[in-house]
Amino acid sequence: MKASTGLNQAASETDPASAKSGNDEFVWTRKHLLGLEDLTREELLHIFRTAEGFQDISTRSIKKVPPLRGRVVVNLFFESSTRTRMSFTLAAQRLSADVLDFAASSSSLAKGESLRDTVRNIEAMGVDTFVIRHTAAGAPHYITSCTDCHVINAGDGQHEHPTQGLIDIFTIRERKGRIDGLNVAIVGDIGHSRVARSNFWGLKRLGANVTFVGPTTLVPRAFQNMGARISHDLDEVLKQADVVNMLRIQRERMTSQVFPSTQEYVRLFGLTRERLRKAKPDVLILHPGPINRGVELASDVADGPNSSILRQVSNGLAIRMAVLFLLNQTSSKDA
Amino acid sequence: MKASTGLNQAASETDPASAKSGNDEFVWTRKHLLGLEDLTREELLHIFRTAEGFQDISTRSIKKVPPLRGRVVVNLFFESSTRTRMSFTLAAQRLSADVLDFAASSSSLAKGESLRDTVRNIEAMGVDTFVIRHTAAGAPHYITSCTDCHVINAGDGQHEHPTQGLIDIFTIRERKGRIDGLNVAIVGDIGHSRVARSNFWGLKRLGANVTFVGPTTLVPRAFQNMGARISHDLDEVLKQADVVNMLRIQRERMTSQVFPSTQEYVRLFGLTRERLRKAKPDVLILHPGPINRGVELASDVADGPNSSILRQVSNGLAIRMAVLFLLNQTSSKDA
Amino acid sequence: MKASTGLNQAASETDPASAKSGNDEFVWTRKHLLGLEDLTREELLHIFRTAEGFQDISTRSIKKVPPLRGRVVVNLFFESSTRTRMSFTLAAQRLSADVLDFAASSSSLAKGESLRDTVRNIEAMGVDTFVIRHTAAGAPHYITSCTDCHVINAGDGQHEHPTQGLIDIFTIRERKGRIDGLNVAIVGDIGHSRVARSNFWGLKRLGANVTFVGPTTLVPRAFQNMGARISHDLDEVLKQADVVNMLRIQRERMTSQVFPSTQEYVRLFGLTRERLRKAKPDVLILHPGPINRGVELASDVADGPNSSILRQVSNGLAIRMAVLFLLNQTSSKDA
Repeated sequence: MKASTGLNQAASETDPASAKSGNDEFVWTRKHLLGLEDLTREELLHIFRTAEGFQDISTRSIKKVPPLRGRVVVNLFFESSTRTRMSFTLAAQRLSADVLDFAASSSSLAKGESLRDTVRNIEAMGVDTFVIRHTAAGAPHYITSCTDCHVINAGDGQHEHPTQGLIDIFTIRERKGRIDGLNVAIVGDIGHSRVARSNFWGLKRLGANVTFVGPTTLVPRAFQNMGARISHDLDEVLKQADVVNMLRIQRERMTSQVFPSTQEYVRLFGLTRERLRKAKPDVLILHPGPINRGVELASDVADGPNSSILRQVSNGLAIRMAVLFLLNQTSSKDA
Repeated sequence: MKASTGLNQAASETDPASAKSGNDEFVWTRKHLLGLEDLTREELLHIFRTAEGFQDISTRSIKKVPPLRGRVVVNLFFESSTRTRMSFTLAAQRLSADVLDFAASSSSLAKGESLRDTVRNIEAMGVDTFVIRHTAAGAPHYITSCTDCHVINAGDGQHEHPTQGLIDIFTIRERKGRIDGLNVAIVGDIGHSRVARSNFWGLKRLGANVTFVGPTTLVPRAFQNMGARISHDLDEVLKQADVVNMLRIQRERMTSQVFPSTQEYVRLFGLTRERLRKAKPDVLILHPGPINRGVELASDVADGPNSSILRQVSNGLAIRMAVLFLLNQTSSKDA
Repeated sequence: MKASTGLNQAASETDPASAKSGNDEFVWTRKHLLGLEDLTREELLHIFRTAEGFQDISTRSIKKVPPLRGRVVVNLFFESSTRTRMSFTLAAQRLSADVLDFAASSSSLAKGESLRDTVRNIEAMGVDTFVIRHTAAGAPHYITSCTDCHVINAGDGQHEHPTQGLIDIFTIRERKGRIDGLNVAIVGDIGHSRVARSNFWGLKRLGANVTFVGPTTLVPRAFQNMGARISHDLDEVLKQADVVNMLRIQRERMTSQVFPSTQEYVRLFGLTRERLRKAKPDVLILHPGPINRGVELASDVADGPNSSILRQVSNGLAIRMAVLFLLNQTSSKDA
C-alpha cells in the first residue's frame, strides 16, 4: 500500500503512515536514530513499511509531500560528505521541510565554542532535527544530552551509519522478499567500517547470517564476539552467499602494514566477473558507494544484472524520508 | 496580542502587523536598517511589538508564515559568520522568503568587480533585501546609494550591529518589563564593539542608564561624549546594575599592549559566581555569543538562573523576522 | 501577451506558455540545451516568446510561479561562478523548483569517482535537471549520455554558453525590435570565448551580420569559416554597427605573447566615450559581465544611455526561467 500519486493528494495533509494503520498497529516512539544495534525487529519493519510508502514520490514529476512543512532540519557535518548530505537534504525537501547546512569549518566552533554550546544555540533558533556526521564515535549520542531536538546519526567514527544500514537491508528485502535465513557477505575493510557494523546489527536482528570477509588485517577476530562469522576466503564464501555487500576500499589504507598492494587486494577480494561465476546466479551485489571501479568491484559487475547499487541510492531517499518523518511524529520535547 | 498559532491561519495571507492595528496606529516608513543611532523611540517600540507577534512562531511545529512569500533575501557576508547568517536565513525562511547566500570569496568581487557593480547586478536579478556584513564601517550605508533594495546592516566594522542591539534590548524589556530607568552595564572590549554601540544608542533612546565597563585600554574616554558612563571597576558597577551585558573577549586582542594576560582579565572583569553575589539578586545577565566560557563569563553563571543568553538567540529570530517584515512593507522603490 | 500579475494567478497552476497557444502553435520537443549551434529559428523564437511571458514576474513583489513545484534542479559547477549559478538558482526558485548545489571540490569526485558515476548517483536520488559548467568542451553533451535528466550547458570550456547567448540576442531583439539584418560586432578575446560562439550561432540563424573584432592574436582567422566577418579595426567596424557586444578581457591573458600591455589594448579596443562618437547614435552596447571598468569598457559608457548591461542581467532571469520551463515540459525519459 503506497501513498497515492495524485497532485491533489500530494498537496493535502495526508499522512502516509496513517493510511497504513489498518496493516500496522505499531506506534513509533523513538525520538532519535543513533544506530541499528538498539532497534527492535518491529521498529526496523516499521521503517521499511514507511519507506515503501515514500518510494514512488521520488519518481513523480512533483516530488514533494507536505508532512514536514515548516519544520527545520540542520545538517551538522564535521566530516566532509557530498552524497549523504545531499540525500538527507533532498529527503527533507521532499517532505517540505526547510534544510540548513551548518558549515563546521567557518563556524563558531572554529572560534573555540563547544559542540554543546553550538547545538544549544542552533536549537534556540527553533529547529527540529539535527543530522550529524562526526569523526568521533558517540558524538550523536552526546548531542542528544544537549538538546530536545531529534538527532539522526549520519555516520560517527567507526561506530554506526544507521541510515546506510537501513538502505542496504531495505534493498535486500525488496529484491529477495525476506531477510530471515539469507547468507549475507560483507567484504572489505570491516574493522574501520561503520557501514559494516550497522548492516550487521540490522541483519542479525532480522535473522540473516552475516559473514565478514577480508584480509586478516582488516577483519579483526573480535568481530566473532558480536555473532558474525569471519572469513578470509571470498571464493569460499561466495558459493553460499545470497547477498554480497562490497565496501569501498580507502586506497590510503593500502599501506604495507595492512596489505601488500592494491593489485594483491583485487586478486583476492575484488569482485570480478570471473569470481562472480562461482556465486549463485541470483546473488545480489550491493555497494554503499562511491565505488572504486577496478578495485573492490569490477565495472562490469557494478553495472551488471546482479547489481542493485543505483537502487540503493534511490532507496536512500525513501529510507531517509521515512526516518525524518517518523522521528518528527514524536514530540521533540519527550525523552 | 500575538499572531495566532493555528495551521489555517499560518497558511493564510494574514498580516500579523495589521492584526495589531487596533493597538498601534504607528506606520513604519523606514526602508533600511543601518543602525540604532537614528531610530526613534516609536520605531524601536514598533519593532518590539512586531517581534512579539512573531515570537511564538518559532515554537510551533509548523514554523512558517506567508508574508514574504516570493520575496528574495540575499546574504552578502564579507566577514565570516555562521550564527548571524543562520539566524537571518531562518528568519527569512520562516516568513516564506527565498534566501540566497552570496559567497564573497568565490565571487565576481574576487575577479575585481566593484562592490557597487556586484550589488547592482544582483539587484537586476530581481531581489528585495540585502543583509550585509562587512569589515568596513559604513559599507551598508554606501550600498543604499547603489540599490533600490532594502539593506539591513548585519555588522559593519566597529560601527553598528543593529539587530543584535535590538535583540539585547528586547530581551531586557521582556524580562524587566521596561527599559526606562534601568542601569545597564556593558562589559568588555567596548572600543572595538559594534554590539556595544548599537546597544548604547537603543538603550539611551529608551531611557536606560548605560555604563561601559572594562580596562582603560578597551574603554576609550571618548565614549563619555556619547553620553555613556565609564567605569573600570566591575565590582563597583555590579552593585547598582539591573542588567549586565558581557561582551565576547577576542583572545587574539589579549596582547601585552592591551592587557597583561587572560588570567588578569578574568580576575578583574570575568563574571564569576563569587562576583555575582555582589549584584542584585535579580540582575539579568546577557551575552551576544559565542561565549568564551571561563573568560568573560564563568560556565555556572552562563547557565544559571540570571542568564537569558539562549533566550537572546530565540529572540533573535523574532527580531530579525520583524525587521525583514517591516522593511518589506515599504516599497523598495521609495527613497 | 504576458503572464498576468495577480496573486491568485501566481498561486494557480496556470501555464504561461499555454496561455499563448493562440499565437504560437510551435511545440517544444528538445530535452537538453547544449548550445545554440543546433537550434532552429523557430526554437530560438519560441524561447524568446516564453521568456517574454516570464519577464514581469521578477518585478512583482511575489516573484514566484508554480510550474516547477516539486522538481529538482542540480547545479553541477566544476568552474567557480557566482553570477551564473545565482541566476540559475533564482530562476529555478522563481518557478518553485528546489535547487541543490553540488560542490565539486568537497565531493565524491575528489575521492576519485568518475563524472558518469557522480551524475548517475545524483539522478538516482530523483532529480530532474542538471545545470553544468565545466572546463572541458563537450562535458554537458557527454553527461546526456549518462542520464535521463535534462541537461543545460552553463558554459563548457571554449565551446558554448547558450543561455548567455540567448540573453544577449533577446536583449538586442527587445531594444532593436528585430535581429534580421542587424550589424553586430563582438569585440575582445574571441578565440577563448564561449560567449562569442553562442552569440554567433544564434545571431546568424536569425539573420544578423556578425563581425568578430580584436587583435590578431585573439581573433583566429579560422573563424571566417564559420561565416563570421573578422576585423582588427574597431573604429572602422563601429561606423556600421547596430550593436556592440564587448567581452570581458581576462587580465591574466594580457601577456606579451598575446598583447603588449593593457594600455595598448585599451587604446585600440577599449570602448570609450570618444570612440563611441564614431558610432551610430542609437548603437546598443552589451557586455556579458563582470565588467573590467576602464579596460574593455569605460565607466561612462557602461553606465550611459546606449548600454543595456543591467537589462541583460534582468533578462537572464527570464531566459533561464524559459529554458528550465520548456525543457521540463518534455518528459525526461524521452530521447
